[in-house]
This record gives sequence, C-alpha cells and structure tokens, in this order.
Amino acid sequence: MKLFPSLRGLAATAIGCLLALSQAQAQGVDLLPSWNDGAAKARVVAFVKAVTEPGGKDFVPPAERIAVFDNDGTLWSEQPVYFQAMFVRDRVVALAPKNPAWKTKEPFASLIKGDLKAVAASGEKGLAALMAAAHAGMTTAEFDKSVSDWIATARHPKTGRLLTDMTFQPMKELLAYLRDNGFKTFIVSGGGIEFMRPWTERVYGITPEQVVGSSGGLKYELRDGKPVLVKLPSVVLNNDKEGKPVGIQRHIGRRPIAAFGNSDGDFEMLAWTTSAPGARLGMLIHHDDAEREFAYDRKSHVGKLDRGLNEAGTRGWSVVSMKDDWKAVFSAPN
Amino acid sequence: MKLFPSLRGLAATAIGCLLALSQAQAQGVDLLPSWNDGAAKARVVAFVKAVTEPGGKDFVPPAERIAVFDNDGTLWSEQPVYFQAMFVRDRVVALAPKNPAWKTKEPFASLIKGDLKAVAASGEKGLAALMAAAHAGMTTAEFDKSVSDWIATARHPKTGRLLTDMTFQPMKELLAYLRDNGFKTFIVSGGGIEFMRPWTERVYGITPEQVVGSSGGLKYELRDGKPVLVKLPSVVLNNDKEGKPVGIQRHIGRRPIAAFGNSDGDFEMLAWTTSAPGARLGMLIHHDDAEREFAYDRKSHVGKLDRGLNEAGTRGWSVVSMKDDWKAVFSAPN
Repeated sequence: MKLFPSLRGLAATAIGCLLALSQAQAQGVDLLPSWNDGAAKARVVAFVKAVTEPGGKDFVPPAERIAVFDNDGTLWSEQPVYFQAMFVRDRVVALAPKNPAWKTKEPFASLIKGDLKAVAASGEKGLAALMAAAHAGMTTAEFDKSVSDWIATARHPKTGRLLTDMTFQPMKELLAYLRDNGFKTFIVSGGGIEFMRPWTERVYGITPEQVVGSSGGLKYELRDGKPVLVKLPSVVLNNDKEGKPVGIQRHIGRRPIAAFGNSDGDFEMLAWTTSAPGARLGMLIHHDDAEREFAYDRKSHVGKLDRGLNEAGTRGWSVVSMKDDWKAVFSAPN
Repeated sequence: MKLFPSLRGLAATAIGCLLALSQAQAQGVDLLPSWNDGAAKARVVAFVKAVTEPGGKDFVPPAERIAVFDNDGTLWSEQPVYFQAMFVRDRVVALAPKNPAWKTKEPFASLIKGDLKAVAASGEKGLAALMAAAHAGMTTAEFDKSVSDWIATARHPKTGRLLTDMTFQPMKELLAYLRDNGFKTFIVSGGGIEFMRPWTERVYGITPEQVVGSSGGLKYELRDGKPVLVKLPSVVLNNDKEGKPVGIQRHIGRRPIAAFGNSDGDFEMLAWTTSAPGARLGMLIHHDDAEREFAYDRKSHVGKLDRGLNEAGTRGWSVVSMKDDWKAVFSAPN
C-alpha cells in the first residue's frame, strides 16, 4: 500500500515556503507598495512586527492572529449605493415576470421602476430582507450561480469599471501582507454572506468559510431525490453594528486582534476587537478622495462615519486618509 | 522602516515544511498506525491519493478539501450519555442555589436529583435548550471559563479517564493525516458550539472557527463600560440531522468532500457530502467493541445507528468496525 500519496504536494509546499523566504530576504521589497509612507502604514507594520516577533511581549500565536475586514467601503466602493443593491434590483427585474404581485408591492414596485434610492434608504438590513424575500425558494446552488453570472459583467454606473475592479489595491496588499505574516483574514460585512462568497476567493483570496455576513434561513430538502439547501425568507443574522461582534463570535469564536472598517456600522466591531489586553489594531478608512473615488462621511446615507471620527483618537484607532495614505486606489483590472 | 518583521516566522515555516517532507520521504512510516490494514484504511488512503494527485481526474484544489467530523461518538465516546449532559448537570447543580425555582421546574428538578437519563432522553436538541436556559445572561468569556475549568478535571463514570482522554486515537491520526494532505478539518456536531471550542484546539488541533455546533443567541452590550457578548436563551441553530447541512452551509459555505459520523444524526451530513460529483468519502464509525469501548447501534437512545447501516452499502459509505479496523481506541492520556 502506498502511504505517501501527498509527496508531491508536500514538496510543492516546501518549495513555496522557500520561495516566500527568499523573496522576503531580498532587501528593500515593500510589501505594501500602494501605501504612502506615513503614520497609517507605519502603524500597520509596527503592529505586525509586535505580534509576530517570537519572545516579544506582544507575541500572538498564528492560530490567534485573526484580522477582520468590513467589505462595503473598506475593501471595495459603496457609492452611489451598496453594490448589492444593484444586484437586488437586477434580480427583482429579472424575476418580476414570474411575480406579478410585485408590481404593486413595495419595495419591489419602486425597485422595478429603478428607484435604487428607496433600496439604499432601507440600509443593509433592508437589503438583506429584500434579498431573502426575492430569493426564497431558490437553492443555494442556483443563487450562487445567479451571483457569479451577474458579478462577471456588472459595471459601476459612474466609472464603467467592473464592480470587482472597484476593489482597493492598498487593502488587497494589506490582506496578503497579513496572511504572509500568519494571520487569518475574515470578511465581516453587513452584506449578504451568500452574495459575497461566490467571488471573494478570486478577488480577495478569502475562502467562503472566512466570509461572515448577514444570513438568511436555510432548509435541507430533497428535490428529484437529491439533497438541496433552499433559501428561506427569514433573517438569522443581521451582521451590522452590534451584530458584527455577534457574527464574529458565531463564526470565528475568537476575538480578533485587528479590525478594519470605514463606517459607524463597524464601530462595535472595532470596539470589540480593541478592548481586550495585548497589541490591538483598529483602523477606519476615511473616504476623503473625491477625485479618485468618493468623498463622504458624517452626512452620508451610505457608509456614514460620524461617531467613529469623533472617538477614533481616544480609542486609539487609526484613521486612514484615502487621499493622503494611498498611492493608488483601485486595483488593476482583473 | 523594517519591512520584514516576520522573517523568523517564515524561516520557521520553511524549516517545518522541510521536516514534514523528509519525514514523509522516510519509507515505511505509516501515518495511520492505529488503523489495521483493511478495507476502511485502504479506502481513506485511496481517496486522499485521488484528490491530491496533481493532474489526476479527481484532483481537488486544497481550498476545496473540506472534511467534516461529527464529535460525539465519532471523535470521542458518547456513552452512557453525551458528555455535555454531565457538564449541564454539574452546571445546574452549581447554579441551583442562585435559582431556587429550578427545584420544582423540569427538567431542572430531575437534573438536580441526578437523573441524567431524563437529560439524555431530550436528545442533543433538548441539551442545547437546557444549556441555553441554564446559561442565559452569562458572557461568552464567563461561559468559556466554566467549560475550560470543568473539562480540565471531568472524568468518565465508567473508565475513570479524563473525558478528553476518551478521544479516539485512530480519528486523531486521521485528522492529522488529512491536514497533512492540505485538508481543512471541521467539527460539525449537534453539541453546543461554545461547549466544544474551549478545548478542541488542544485536543484535536481544530481551531474555534472550524467548529460548527448547535448555537444559542448572543447579544452585544456594555458592562462596566466594556463590550461583552451575553448568552441568550434562544436557539439559532439546531445542528443535528437536517440541521447539519444547514450548519455546514452557514459556517463553511462550501460542500465538503469527506464526512465522518457514527449515528443517524449524521445521515443528512453524509448524504449532502457524497451526493455531488467527483471523489467523495462518507464513513460511519460503528460502535461494535464492547470490550474496549461500548457496543450499540440500532436500538440505542444515544447515537442510534439504524438507517445508516441499512443504506451505507447502496450509498457507497464505508462502515468502520471499531473492533476490527482499529488497533487502539483511546488516545494516550493528554
């Protein structure tokens, strides 16, 4: 009996490790090239050094190096509306012929007329409820395919870029940098968990089990004798604001040591992350670059950042200026 | 600015890889030494070879190598009652002085009198509800500590072993063997998620985020100005039977390619895992060793295995005989 079927796999892993090592040994390579030298970048690097240095007073074992990232406004743009709202609109329009009652039922009626503001006004919670209502009865496999098909061609109304090309290059470098240093990187978003999972691995290198999001009920049943999971209209997790620490505990079961957000919806996630002893990192991405992206904060109906700006200083959170701290904003087209 | 704080970490990883490689290269080392040579062991090895061989028709990329394990009766014993029932009894007895109403309220009254059968009869679902009721109002940190303290000394009523020494050595070898081959190993148990997480990393090498279990509601709030997560009496996931594929989708978001269970509570998990195309592995541990562990199946009130035995053959699932397939049962004392 051959007991070492994975010899080639192990060899490949060892070679991969050696390559990573030699790459890191090459002096002068900046692993965060899209970040300008400044306080934000220095803070990240100092934090990573503190928690990874063996024997250091702030050393954290790799299994406990949990970093959580909001998605909308933190890893990709969220203006003029959460991108998921565009998906919901397109899905509702596509499904409308089979659901004639929607023509007179709100918020479906407004949606079908193209009133995205009405969707946006209901927030991520309203979006999740709409998603659940619009997709109840679909199997998870059918829903996955509908997301994958849509995201492959969906473009931003202002920039014309693919939505997956509205992702932030500095944050992708940060994700990779943390993973290179033994961190596990999780998305913790108010967006729908099943809306994100079909593409986060390709776009961010984040596998489905490391995506936490608002979640609807599911039911196991047999269709044509085969097991399927069917989406229910119920909401089992509203993963926003106070819901984010709940989602983190439910899915990760361990308090993160680093958290990245951009709005007051991330306030409790950062508070939960940074209020335990030891080295902790809390960062808020401030959308202050109207030229390269969008500028909004205290008054915005999407991604409102008000309390976070007020309290970042006293809580020891860094505020990242997209304008000043980032050399580039969007990643190169995928 | 020093940009390579993790150089030593990377070096350690590379050295670890090389050690693993040289270990595997040493001819004749059996990575599953507690398994007798036979059909079950051969099936595992052939499956792992099939999904890890680059270019093979059944090759599965590492990110998709998801293996799920039931806990009670699959990774450790479950007789004479689920071990969690003993925890619940001890907790209820400890908390009883502060909850005088329990003296006349079922199932608390029976529990306080030591009637574990009454708890067992309510099944894993009843246990989860009892857990939730008994611990509502505690913070997750307080609950974690109560589990950790308890499991450090809790012993089995028949064998006198620590409960964590009632874990199965062949299954621990299997977990390690799969992980060495790029698999991610998850627990998917009807037991309480917060009951398992405090010790699964130490005992099985399974980190908290890879533990899926029955879950109660949580609420974020401030106590003495510090954020805490408080346990609620509600049940948000009954992770048993049809609930297991739901828990898998919610937490992992990807269909496993291998599933290991021991009772009809695992039937749907194995059906979900093995009913998709490609190489799949479904295994049922059969408790047929009264001498070294316990012998029970079709008639047992705990860990009943009836439909699984009937349908394993037609579904292509392997039935593992603890008596014939395992050289050893329990792991050496921790």
